[in-house]
Amino acid sequence: MKLSIIGAGTVGSRVAELADSYGHTVTAISDSTSAVTDASGVDVHAVLEDKRESGTIGNEESESALEAEYDCLVEVTPSTLGDAEPAFNHIATALRRDRHVVLGNKSPMAQRYRDVRELEENSAGEVLFEATIGGPIPVLSTIHDVGPDRVISIKGVFNGLANFILSRMTAEGLGYEHVLAEAQDLGIAEVDPTFDVEGTDTALTCSILANVLAESDTEFTVDDVSIEGITEIPGSALNLAREDGKTVRLLGEVRDGQLRVAPRTVPQNSPLAVTGPQTVVELDIQDAGQVNVTSSAATSTEVASTILTDVNRLERQ
Amino acid sequence: MKLSIIGAGTVGSRVAELADSYGHTVTAISDSTSAVTDASGVDVHAVLEDKRESGTIGNEESESALEAEYDCLVEVTPSTLGDAEPAFNHIATALRRDRHVVLGNKSPMAQRYRDVRELEENSAGEVLFEATIGGPIPVLSTIHDVGPDRVISIKGVFNGLANFILSRMTAEGLGYEHVLAEAQDLGIAEVDPTFDVEGTDTALTCSILANVLAESDTEFTVDDVSIEGITEIPGSALNLAREDGKTVRLLGEVRDGQLRVAPRTVPQNSPLAVTGPQTVVELDIQDAGQVNVTSSAATSTEVASTILTDVNRLERQ
Repeated sequence: MKLSIIGAGTVGSRVAELADSYGHTVTAISDSTSAVTDASGVDVHAVLEDKRESGTIGNEESESALEAEYDCLVEVTPSTLGDAEPAFNHIATALRRDRHVVLGNKSPMAQRYRDVRELEENSAGEVLFEATIGGPIPVLSTIHDVGPDRVISIKGVFNGLANFILSRMTAEGLGYEHVLAEAQDLGIAEVDPTFDVEGTDTALTCSILANVLAESDTEFTVDDVSIEGITEIPGSALNLAREDGKTVRLLGEVRDGQLRVAPRTVPQNSPLAVTGPQTVVELDIQDAGQVNVTSSAATSTEVASTILTDVNRLERQ
Repeated sequence: MKLSIIGAGTVGSRVAELADSYGHTVTAISDSTSAVTDASGVDVHAVLEDKRESGTIGNEESESALEAEYDCLVEVTPSTLGDAEPAFNHIATALRRDRHVVLGNKSPMAQRYRDVRELEENSAGEVLFEATIGGPIPVLSTIHDVGPDRVISIKGVFNGLANFILSRMTAEGLGYEHVLAEAQDLGIAEVDPTFDVEGTDTALTCSILANVLAESDTEFTVDDVSIEGITEIPGSALNLAREDGKTVRLLGEVRDGQLRVAPRTVPQNSPLAVTGPQTVVELDIQDAGQVNVTSSAATSTEVASTILTDVNRLERQ
C-alpha cells in the first residue's frame, strides 16, 4: 500500500524505515512544519538523514501530506487531550477521501470515538489502532472476534516507561527522580515524561478499551477515568509491598464502565508483575477465562511493527 | 451459522451447549456410533441428556451428520496419528460440499497439512484451527497478519495436563504416579493420558505450527519432531532445578524447521513457567520482539469457546 505518514518523531521515522520490508511504499511524510511527497515513493533514508541535519522533513507545506497520493494514512503525531486535534482533522481528511487510517496516536479513539466511527461509516476507508493498546498480538481484533459483550474486564500495565521506573525503584531501592533521569539517559523516557508518569497515557488506553467494549450509545474520554500516577509513590511503600511478596505496578482497569488508573499491589509471581519496559494486557473473557498477553517492550521499532501489521491487515481485507 | 458437530466427547458436548449463546444453531451431532440431525435445530440439552442415560447420541447413522444441512463442520473427534483418519475424511466431505470447517482435532493440520490446504483451495469453504494451538487469543491469525516469514521462533507449554503434573510435582514434592492419579480424580486427565504425558499432543501442536510457518513446498508431521515426555523425570531433577532458581516445563519448540518436545529448565520467573493447567505460547517476531500469551486453562469450556470464536470469524468474513 502507499502510505502517508503524519508525524516524523521516533515512531513515524521507524514506520518509514520499515515500510519497504513490509511491502509498502511511503509516498508522503510530514512533521508539524513541513512535508515531502512523491507519488512514486519517497527516498526515506535521504529524507530522514536530511531531517537529522536540517531539522525539517522537506520543503513542502505540512498539509501536502494529507492531500498526497496514498492508500493509508498513518497518524503518529503526539497524543493530545481535549478535542484530539490536530490528529482528528487528519483522520477526517483521509476518511472523506475514502482512504484507510492506522493510528499510533491514542487521542482520536480515546477522546472522540463516536465522531471517528461516524466518519468511518460514511467512508470506504477503515480505521485500525492496535498500536494504541499494546504489542503485536491483536487485542482489539480478539475483542471483535469473541464479541465485546463477552469481555468481562480488561486490565494491564500499558505504559512501558512507568513500568520501567517502578520496577527499577523496587529492584534497586532507588528514588523516583534518580530512576527517571536514568530512563532519560537510556532514551526510554522522552524529555517530558508527564503523560507517562502521571497516568494520562494509561488513561487514554483505558478510554479506548472502554469505548471498544461500550454499547453504541455510550462514549468515554479520559475525563471518565479516575487517575493516579506514580510520581508520589514513596520508596517505603515499595519496600512494604515486597516484604509481603507483592510488588507495585501502574495498572489501568476497565470493568462495567468503570475506568481506573492507579499504582496497585500485585503478587510478585502474577502475570501482571512484568518488569522493565514490558507491557501486559489481561483479558477476562466469558467461557474463555483469563488470558494474559505480555510484550517485551514498546520501543519505536515494536510500535512501528504493530502499525505496519495493521496496514497488512487492511491490505488483506 | 448452522453447525454439524462431529464428536460428542467433553469438547463436542460443550460446543453444542454454548453454540446458541454465540448465535449459532446445531443442526447435527454425531459420535462414532450414531447421530442426530435436525435442519431446524437439534434440541441440544435433550440429546446430551439422552446420551448420558443411554450412551448413544441418537438413532441415525453416524455418517448422517456429514450429509446433514450445515454451514460449518466442527471436527472434535480425538486426535490420531498416521493418516489423521477418520477426521481427514470428515473435513474432505465438508470442503467438497463447499462448507467451512473448524478443528479441535489436531491431527489433520499436524499430519496432512498440504492435503487439507489443497482441498481448501478447491472449495468455497475455509478451515480454521485456533483451538489446536492454545487459548482464545488468535496465535494463528497473528502469524498470518505479521507474515509467517517474520516469525523467528515459537515455543510454549501447550499441554495443560503435563504442566499440571510437573508443577504439582515441583510444588509438593510428589511423585509422577501420585500426581497423575490426582489429576484423574480432578477430571483434568483422561483415563488414558498417554498422548499428554509422553509429549505426543505437544508434538502435534509443534507440527501444526511448523506447517503454518513453512514454505509451501515443505511439510511436517509428528515424525519430524524429536519427542521426550515427562513420565521418566525423577523428583530429584525437579529439586535440583529449584535449588538453582529454575523449574522444569514440558516445552514444544519450533525454530528453523527444527521441532522439539522435551522437559526443559526455565527460570522460575520466566513467562514460560506457568503453573497448574495453564498454557503459554511465546512468539519471537522480527521487529516486534518477544510476545507471550498465557491462557488460564484449556478446559472443555475454554476450548469450546475458542472453536465458537473461529465460527464467529468465518461468519464475519
